[in-house]
Amino acid sequence: MNSIPPEAASGFAPPELRKDPIMGRWVIIATERSRRPLQLDDHAAHAQHLQCPFCGGNEAETPREITAWRGDDGKSWQVRVVPNKYPALRGEGETDLHSDGLYDAMSGIGVHEVFIESPAHVASLTDVPEANVRAMLRLYQERLRALKQDDRLVFGMIFKNVGSQAGASLEHTHSQLIVLPIVPITVREEMQGSLAHYQDTGDCVFCAMVRQERATARRVVLETDHFLAFCPYASRFPFETWIVPTQHGSHYEGTTVPVLNDLATTLRSVLGRIERTLSRPAYNYILHTSPFDAPLLPHYHWHLEIIPRLTRIAGFEWGTGFYINPVPPEVAAGQLRELRKE
Amino acid sequence: MNSIPPEAASGFAPPELRKDPIMGRWVIIATERSRRPLQLDDHAAHAQHLQCPFCGGNEAETPREITAWRGDDGKSWQVRVVPNKYPALRGEGETDLHSDGLYDAMSGIGVHEVFIESPAHVASLTDVPEANVRAMLRLYQERLRALKQDDRLVFGMIFKNVGSQAGASLEHTHSQLIVLPIVPITVREEMQGSLAHYQDTGDCVFCAMVRQERATARRVVLETDHFLAFCPYASRFPFETWIVPTQHGSHYEGTTVPVLNDLATTLRSVLGRIERTLSRPAYNYILHTSPFDAPLLPHYHWHLEIIPRLTRIAGFEWGTGFYINPVPPEVAAGQLRELRKE
Repeated sequence: MNSIPPEAASGFAPPELRKDPIMGRWVIIATERSRRPLQLDDHAAHAQHLQCPFCGGNEAETPREITAWRGDDGKSWQVRVVPNKYPALRGEGETDLHSDGLYDAMSGIGVHEVFIESPAHVASLTDVPEANVRAMLRLYQERLRALKQDDRLVFGMIFKNVGSQAGASLEHTHSQLIVLPIVPITVREEMQGSLAHYQDTGDCVFCAMVRQERATARRVVLETDHFLAFCPYASRFPFETWIVPTQHGSHYEGTTVPVLNDLATTLRSVLGRIERTLSRPAYNYILHTSPFDAPLLPHYHWHLEIIPRLTRIAGFEWGTGFYINPVPPEVAAGQLRELRKE
Repeated sequence: MNSIPPEAASGFAPPELRKDPIMGRWVIIATERSRRPLQLDDHAAHAQHLQCPFCGGNEAETPREITAWRGDDGKSWQVRVVPNKYPALRGEGETDLHSDGLYDAMSGIGVHEVFIESPAHVASLTDVPEANVRAMLRLYQERLRALKQDDRLVFGMIFKNVGSQAGASLEHTHSQLIVLPIVPITVREEMQGSLAHYQDTGDCVFCAMVRQERATARRVVLETDHFLAFCPYASRFPFETWIVPTQHGSHYEGTTVPVLNDLATTLRSVLGRIERTLSRPAYNYILHTSPFDAPLLPHYHWHLEIIPRLTRIAGFEWGTGFYINPVPPEVAAGQLRELRKE
């Protein structure tokens, strides 16, 4: 993959949010991100243990720890939360909206944190003990609850990038949190879409989906005590899989510990199936939850979306928002489900 | 990059359009696409001349020619339009909307064509004679005008994928047209956004953008008789460049021949600058124009968007619709402009 020429990455200014005057979509102009060392690329993906800043023993390579889970002995960390060294947004300053003729901009305030999911150098969440996954899920909650207190911030996006094709720059298993001063357009559309369904039917669209998927079973990957994992009917990508709580809840941070523990089991199982079926593909997962200021909502339902990165986004998808998926979700779910019998 | 396992690509059904019940976005489930031979991948990109179905002499490898431009001698083709051998949509049948509980689907009717821009095996539009680029731009118009006559179809999307990172499967220079039975969500949002601006101000937002970019000049790449090329203020991607006609017009197919000829010059120049600055990166370009049934619109303005593919879309972008761009458009435009002096 070509990279950005060094001349284009020379000047560093604080991050700025800019709004497209036609589409209303925001972009983050973050010059500091271009300094990010890329340890992962297509040709040299697996030899980075020694200089890995996320490995136990290399703690001085990351900015100062925010919080951590230290396991039973209370000594060495097992899951660790640190600020991103090359943040897309910065914590200082006020949300300062200004415009220049047609264009609106805002100072790029916000928070960008990293969850390091193991002190050992492993690439996958399926390689760490389940206790770490449970701790990671609780730390997601802890950070969302803490950052909600900041009046300037309105939405926290938790996500994971695995593999260079999915945008990861480091191999060591980790996930991220970006907290924004604006509710992003995709989240707003998802909230509006589910509200419209609720107004039409008096029903949560995700609850309805859980019922229909359970009843037909053709797209179900697995069901646990608290979750249904399925390939959605209108999957954008081959083997796209959603993990949806079977009990309604609009806020991830309101989820109880037994449910989170079940999510740890479900998530590891689903990721393990995807890894075995697709030979450890690059993937993203994204936690979909409510904006900070939303009260408990009858129409919105938090969940996790997993996107294996097997196909590339081409001009057609950029121009239309239409996705071309060569694998029907019924076929994908069938293959992921099969592994249950092993 | 991992590929789709062969078991998942075994059953072939006609393409189907499916609608996500939350976001209202459509996907095309097109199993036939998985049979597409991938001649381009990250490791073996440049050795495909012999079996290239787009090369002069291999005409039997493509479906039957729809139209072509034969140049002055009137004999051998110079630009050729053929149906896509692995179409995302198919021409037969009616738009048959049906639903299954929560979900809506439609038969995947539509058209998928390929413009082969040269009989010689070259990878870039900058390697073919300008006469071919002019012919290609006129053939875009000819196909849009012809397919507009089909009452089942409502929007034609013209785009180009160059390089495997941009979703191309063949190296030989080509572009594509997909004609859809539904106006895609991104197009609808762009039409709505520009209409809202027009209702607020009485002005076309693209005309206003041309005036402001010309006045400040900081993001301008070049200006020709009929076009302004600039890196947009809210660029999603490093070196994203738009080519916008300086005269208002809502429909690409209504553009006159002198203006199209100037577009050929402008497009080759801008692509050449991008190729020299970024060492022939993968890129997409997308023609933004009005839906088939739209009358002449005072608020919408056709244009071309070029997206070099230097950064990868990661979980944050999928979840938010927010883009993180490490290169300010002012810096990108400065570098692309510099080459003028060579």
